Amino acid sequence: MSDRRTEILRAATRVIARRGVRGLRVGELAAEAGVSTSLIYYHFTDRAGILHQTLQFISDRADRYTAEREPGAPPDDPRAELEQMLLLELQDTAEVRENSTAWGELRASAVFEPELREELAMATHTWVHEIAELLGRAHPMGTAPAHAASAERLTALLEGLSVRWLSGSLPLEHARGLLKGAIAAELGRG
Amino acid sequence: MSDRRTEILRAATRVIARRGVRGLRVGELAAEAGVSTSLIYYHFTDRAGILHQTLQFISDRADRYTAEREPGAPPDDPRAELEQMLLLELQDTAEVRENSTAWGELRASAVFEPELREELAMATHTWVHEIAELLGRAHPMGTAPAHAASAERLTALLEGLSVRWLSGSLPLEHARGLLKGAIAAELGRG
Repeated sequence: MSDRRTEILRAATRVIARRGVRGLRVGELAAEAGVSTSLIYYHFTDRAGILHQTLQFISDRADRYTAEREPGAPPDDPRAELEQMLLLELQDTAEVRENSTAWGELRASAVFEPELREELAMATHTWVHEIAELLGRAHPMGTAPAHAASAERLTALLEGLSVRWLSGSLPLEHARGLLKGAIAAELGRG
Repeated sequence: MSDRRTEILRAATRVIARRGVRGLRVGELAAEAGVSTSLIYYHFTDRAGILHQTLQFISDRADRYTAEREPGAPPDDPRAELEQMLLLELQDTAEVRENSTAWGELRASAVFEPELREELAMATHTWVHEIAELLGRAHPMGTAPAHAASAERLTALLEGLSVRWLSGSLPLEHARGLLKGAIAAELGRG
């Protein structure tokens, strides 16, 4: 993808994380990205196009930072990989905070803006399948529907904890501890 | 509390559920409630006062509809009471849908509006304590910190499932099944 396009998507994520989806105006986005509004329309057609592509950008970025391996991590331990993939969504770095704020805001705004719903449901399915696949490797004696249900619970819990953290109701370390407890509970049963 | 005041809070909840916290303007609220803006300022002082009182109103209303006993329910079964208290937040009635939409929106907007945070953290603590107390009665051999952590997970999961349901990513019956599974997992372990 072109550098310009990526730069606009990065700027859209910043604007959404700072002011919300409803604060995103094309003129402001152009100023933030340092480009003309016509270049934005050229790449994304309209506001809906910007939102769809930004959702994808945020989702890809989360894929990247949750897949980073810690130095010295064992080469193939599915349980460790699962914990890492979920816990790296609860990190106090500027990138994760911005990404999680924008993701939560896209989710919350889809309650009011139906046009984002299908894209969001698809991104959620992809995420749930990735987690279910890791659960299957960490706990091969379980059934596929049980892994899928566990993955839906763990990702929905993570979203719930994340918005509590970002809105100041829950300290980060405590949120991480609660998520670890949930992973143990999901892996602990038949 | 005065009927007028309640009527304004009911109208504020409707406006938030329809257009979001950021769509709430005092003039629009006055029109929705059928009162003058000066009466709103008389009762609530300012927009922050409206939001604080509406948060309390929404929280009290959820207390009421989650405490309704089904006819023929056993008189004191803490596990059934716990399931009911959580599952009644996932009901397809106009009142629950409106209340949950407004609650999720207040939570999401607190990421952007810090002034709601303390009120929201307090309402969350109250809710977590109620659930922890029921967990303690349903599972008296567990420890208080374990019950508190389970209550934090169950309520955060419920918020996560609720916004997925309201934003069209998750069918209601499926969300209820996932929540029942989480209750079983939390009660199932030491």
